[in-house]
Amino acid sequence: MDKELSSIHYDQYLQLQKILDAQKLRSVEFNKPAHDEMLFIIVHQVYELWFKEILHDLGSIMELFSEGKVEEAQIGVAISRLDRIVKIQKILVDQIDIIETMTPLDFLDFRNYLLPASGFQSFQFRQLEVSLGLKRERRISYTQCSYSGVFSDHEQEILNNLEAGDSMFDLVEKWLERTPFLQFETFDFLEEYKKSVQLMLQREEQAIDKADYISDQEKMLRVRMLGETNTYFNSIFNKEMHEEKLKEGSLKLSYKATISALLINLYRDEPLLRQPFMFLQKLIDMDELLTTWRNRHAQMVLRTLGQKIGTGGSSGYDYLKTTADKHRVFYDLHNISTLLIPRSFLPALPMELKEKLDFNFSKDD
Amino acid sequence: MDKELSSIHYDQYLQLQKILDAQKLRSVEFNKPAHDEMLFIIVHQVYELWFKEILHDLGSIMELFSEGKVEEAQIGVAISRLDRIVKIQKILVDQIDIIETMTPLDFLDFRNYLLPASGFQSFQFRQLEVSLGLKRERRISYTQCSYSGVFSDHEQEILNNLEAGDSMFDLVEKWLERTPFLQFETFDFLEEYKKSVQLMLQREEQAIDKADYISDQEKMLRVRMLGETNTYFNSIFNKEMHEEKLKEGSLKLSYKATISALLINLYRDEPLLRQPFMFLQKLIDMDELLTTWRNRHAQMVLRTLGQKIGTGGSSGYDYLKTTADKHRVFYDLHNISTLLIPRSFLPALPMELKEKLDFNFSKDD
Amino acid sequence: MDKELSSIHYDQYLQLQKILDAQKLRSVEFNKPAHDEMLFIIVHQVYELWFKEILHDLGSIMELFSEGKVEEAQIGVAISRLDRIVKIQKILVDQIDIIETMTPLDFLDFRNYLLPASGFQSFQFRQLEVSLGLKRERRISYTQCSYSGVFSDHEQEILNNLEAGDSMFDLVEKWLERTPFLQFETFDFLEEYKKSVQLMLQREEQAIDKADYISDQEKMLRVRMLGETNTYFNSIFNKEMHEEKLKEGSLKLSYKATISALLINLYRDEPLLRQPFMFLQKLIDMDELLTTWRNRHAQMVLRTLGQKIGTGGSSGYDYLKTTADKHRVFYDLHNISTLLIPRSFLPALPMELKEKLDFNFSKDD
Amino acid sequence: MDKELSSIHYDQYLQLQKILDAQKLRSVEFNKPAHDEMLFIIVHQVYELWFKEILHDLGSIMELFSEGKVEEAQIGVAISRLDRIVKIQKILVDQIDIIETMTPLDFLDFRNYLLPASGFQSFQFRQLEVSLGLKRERRISYTQCSYSGVFSDHEQEILNNLEAGDSMFDLVEKWLERTPFLQFETFDFLEEYKKSVQLMLQREEQAIDKADYISDQEKMLRVRMLGETNTYFNSIFNKEMHEEKLKEGSLKLSYKATISALLINLYRDEPLLRQPFMFLQKLIDMDELLTTWRNRHAQMVLRTLGQKIGTGGSSGYDYLKTTADKHRVFYDLHNISTLLIPRSFLPALPMELKEKLDFNFSKDD
Repeated sequence: MDKELSSIHYDQYLQLQKILDAQKLRSVEFNKPAHDEMLFIIVHQVYELWFKEILHDLGSIMELFSEGKVEEAQIGVAISRLDRIVKIQKILVDQIDIIETMTPLDFLDFRNYLLPASGFQSFQFRQLEVSLGLKRERRISYTQCSYSGVFSDHEQEILNNLEAGDSMFDLVEKWLERTPFLQFETFDFLEEYKKSVQLMLQREEQAIDKADYISDQEKMLRVRMLGETNTYFNSIFNKEMHEEKLKEGSLKLSYKATISALLINLYRDEPLLRQPFMFLQKLIDMDELLTTWRNRHAQMVLRTLGQKIGTGGSSGYDYLKTTADKHRVFYDLHNISTLLIPRSFLPALPMELKEKLDFNFSKDD
Repeated sequence: MDKELSSIHYDQYLQLQKILDAQKLRSVEFNKPAHDEMLFIIVHQVYELWFKEILHDLGSIMELFSEGKVEEAQIGVAISRLDRIVKIQKILVDQIDIIETMTPLDFLDFRNYLLPASGFQSFQFRQLEVSLGLKRERRISYTQCSYSGVFSDHEQEILNNLEAGDSMFDLVEKWLERTPFLQFETFDFLEEYKKSVQLMLQREEQAIDKADYISDQEKMLRVRMLGETNTYFNSIFNKEMHEEKLKEGSLKLSYKATISALLINLYRDEPLLRQPFMFLQKLIDMDELLTTWRNRHAQMVLRTLGQKIGTGGSSGYDYLKTTADKHRVFYDLHNISTLLIPRSFLPALPMELKEKLDFNFSKDD
Repeated sequence: MDKELSSIHYDQYLQLQKILDAQKLRSVEFNKPAHDEMLFIIVHQVYELWFKEILHDLGSIMELFSEGKVEEAQIGVAISRLDRIVKIQKILVDQIDIIETMTPLDFLDFRNYLLPASGFQSFQFRQLEVSLGLKRERRISYTQCSYSGVFSDHEQEILNNLEAGDSMFDLVEKWLERTPFLQFETFDFLEEYKKSVQLMLQREEQAIDKADYISDQEKMLRVRMLGETNTYFNSIFNKEMHEEKLKEGSLKLSYKATISALLINLYRDEPLLRQPFMFLQKLIDMDELLTTWRNRHAQMVLRTLGQKIGTGGSSGYDYLKTTADKHRVFYDLHNISTLLIPRSFLPALPMELKEKLDFNFSKDD
Repeated sequence: MDKELSSIHYDQYLQLQKILDAQKLRSVEFNKPAHDEMLFIIVHQVYELWFKEILHDLGSIMELFSEGKVEEAQIGVAISRLDRIVKIQKILVDQIDIIETMTPLDFLDFRNYLLPASGFQSFQFRQLEVSLGLKRERRISYTQCSYSGVFSDHEQEILNNLEAGDSMFDLVEKWLERTPFLQFETFDFLEEYKKSVQLMLQREEQAIDKADYISDQEKMLRVRMLGETNTYFNSIFNKEMHEEKLKEGSLKLSYKATISALLINLYRDEPLLRQPFMFLQKLIDMDELLTTWRNRHAQMVLRTLGQKIGTGGSSGYDYLKTTADKHRVFYDLHNISTLLIPRSFLPALPMELKEKLDFNFSKDD
């Protein structure tokens, strides 16, 4: 039987007695009240609340993708929730403007009381990084503090379990690897794509050759560009080279998943590939915004502390700036762009495949 | 044969000699140089450039929808282009912050030289409003200037032709009216929906009745809410009432199109309805942002001019504020929300229909 | 003796055990888990945290202004803190984008469990409105619920005390009334300003008269504009008329304060008036953003609920839209723009006054 | 005699016939119309229009600062104009969201026609960098193209002249060097500051020493932090070391200017130093936003092109990412934060100096 519906008041529903009673200024405690400490506390609490929401949405997407097969409707849900995460991330970036209303001098009024608390101790942020797929060995360390000094035993256990299981990256990789259509009857996607790439490069070479309207300098530049382009393409045709790069760590996404992502990007105009394409786009949005946030955060720290060492002993700006690029998880998805070719060179799909990829809203008219 | 490819320089490609030579300050011409007139000119030119892009995107969507049948892939394209329009609109709103760096006193330094130029004379903005579906008779007039006094003969002809043809609103309405599935074999959507609504209202009435944990005041409130809710629902079950409201002008969307929009909203989790749902969402986003822009624009005018009459003779703030609500085109799509019922009351679709609405990315695994 | 400094951990400092444990989903409690209820709770908690910060900053400004005399340095502090409030308000507006990722159908999944909780019950928001200067009798009522039904006795007492004391509006008005310089030795600001206005209007009349390059229609328009302009100016020269409007309620700011605000706006280039001018600008920013928030909030409610009645029994969209304009507190400061005249007509200040208004950073070189 | 005032129409005033006729799609010219090329052209034109406005504002500030002495009122104007530049920059960053609606595949539809046009050829952007103070020798080169291949002779001359004259950086440095108060009668700022720093460091050392509530690990961390802090401070007390760093290039701002900037930051609560402080803050805002724009721009390029070489032959992402940090001009102003000390350690100013730094709006009451 259902629980009986009871009335509820706004304050009670939002548990405001807890939320609004959780700002205890250390500067007040030490009898040197600093007005801006309130902002400092509140802005961090807001960040933590948004992290909780992001984890809630990300967790639900991971659940959808952890079952062997992902239904079309579930990709739709995943896109909506990633879109929400992206909108939250935009706010996380924009609200750094609020923190920067606290000037360096104002911060010094209470900074000493915070030692050694540090954003580095945010368990939820670490949880987020690990859930996305940042590996412990890839993480840049910025303090002598051992891992165990930062989180409680219980928290460490949660992180260890997260690392042991499939991350968002792993789930996306597996889903991509399951993509059908790479081989459809006699149509071999990679083979056809390879022919197109060669034709395209050949055409470009000829065009440069006979172009007498451009300077020699520019001709050389174009030839050089073509050469480098060639290199990028060769790498996708060579599974061994790809595996090598995976070992080195310069690539992360498996060979098969990479080819699937390429196929989805190239044929994203086919109805059935539209949602998978949008899903990949949203992952890139999320990744990009995390980088933007890290860059912006680093700047804010530089502005507030200069080259001072952070309250947690971190080296501040330099460390944060480096993570912006290095802690990125879906870098290989950005890189698919390197492998795209113009639609005019796109291999035509066999009619039967094209039909399989189509469906129509009003086909019964 | 293809035209031969030639080199091009950045300046030449962007025609910067035109773009950057189009700022002629009237205050300079009259020997009273006002620093801020440059901003005033440039910000308006930027607006006009964005309007051109919006018209370019909107026009392409209207073309897709003007052919009898809209393919699934085309809805995908329409969504992407609406999304672009929405992102441009956000910038149009945000850049009002830039205009507001020009204080009222700074504006007075050159305002006199501008008479009677006015934003009301923007042909592209008028074109946009007419393309969306704002009818001449619904437009709020704010000046004695006759229509003919504002635009050239050629421009008037374009506007007349636009009004004579199908607007975006018309095209969306026709597309909605073509939606299949309102009647699928023995399944009559409206009939099933009606039963669900009645069941839902009945349950709520009982719940209120037996609830002894709420005050009498609150009980009365809930009963009143239920009554009004009932009224909204009745209106969708009564085609005559709907037609009546169309005549009065309190509604704009046809009965059949309204029911289709309702169906799409209720069953948007079905794969085949996902894109149509997203398309309707983007239309609402666009409509909402146009309203936000009008409100924000009105505020900026109030701040800069107070109650002064605008350079074109418009009454400024009051006029602009009124158009925010009155010139809205897709209001009825917002209103669909009134008719939604919780998923738990949603009539189940017959299995055959559910299958028709499904398709699957990995169905061939 | 000072309390001894102790170490503190991030979680402990931010009291995250409270903050992150305050999301109890009603839908879960009633065994119908709705994913989006988490967002709904968190977004409201974030709003309340920001409201707390706004009240903290606003309160500190009111304290500075409540002592008879406001030092220059204090105006500087007030500007910084208003700037912070404004930056927070921007985020409050922007994060409505996040709420709108929750679709109407998703909201219906748990809306029923929330009755009769409502944003109308936010004590902090009410506190903010009252602190700014919104009077109970001006507040638009949107529910039959009596005032006492909404807040606890203790909360009502706080609101009553706030209303009894000086609001931000009152403090600003008093500060403006204390402005010196309205009468400086033989220089009577209002008298000189009046002469300038008359000269300006006369010149404009002559210009229209002899202009043979403009159409008769436009001539008429310009004459009409001049007439209305005249009316605005007359009102500032007539203390009785002003007092009348205060009684009616169409104006709120006292005659003397209005004239001071006008003087500050006109001579804001004088070093000593720069900060007072910036302070008035920030007040307008804050007022404008509150209006923008109300408009945006109303739109979001329309989109989510359509014309449905809100959980608290409010009529939703229509009510909220109306408050955007009617609950504005510093409207009269916007209106100062109506009274500005071009710098070229500005009465010259006597040399002694100009010197009094000047100071120089490097005067001792 | 004044030129006679004539009527003007909106289109004519904004020269819309030029502005709206400057979008010639290369893809159309080559008979392969690509819808998104319109966006590509328009977004770049909008950037160039904003660059023109930024140069207009920056130029006016540089003019104000190029006269030996800067009046207080002029600092006020400079702050307002920097604030405008900052608001424009925010839009420049945000509108990258619009460009990103163009997918990599859509770009490939017309990319080939653009060779070798490149954003690197934007003369206005180069002008901006040089005006701010980026030196040719510090600029990171990313192409074999010689400088002369990029700009016309006339443009090169303008850039050479700009480099020969005072940049914004030079003007700010000179203005800072003119700051009085570093030595005021018997008060020697640097001497007093040094004593305070020593006292502060000594106190912190003692505190760490006797703290038995912290772990040895944390103690070591704190001692290490103290050591590094000591190093930063020592550098400001040693003119020779500073000159050395200027030679190496790790610092750019002269010794005297650095000390002045420090004084302004420390005593910014004194009325007379408030505006200079705000001016420095706005410079940092501008610098920071340029960095943000560069980072965001780099990301967008990565997303659109992957590791492909740009149309102008630039290596794209890697190059752009590097400039974000290396092309920063006012880095040393950010670094002042390193040298700040808490207000409680601030040397008291002699009464006479304090009075000199004060002025009061209502002092004549």
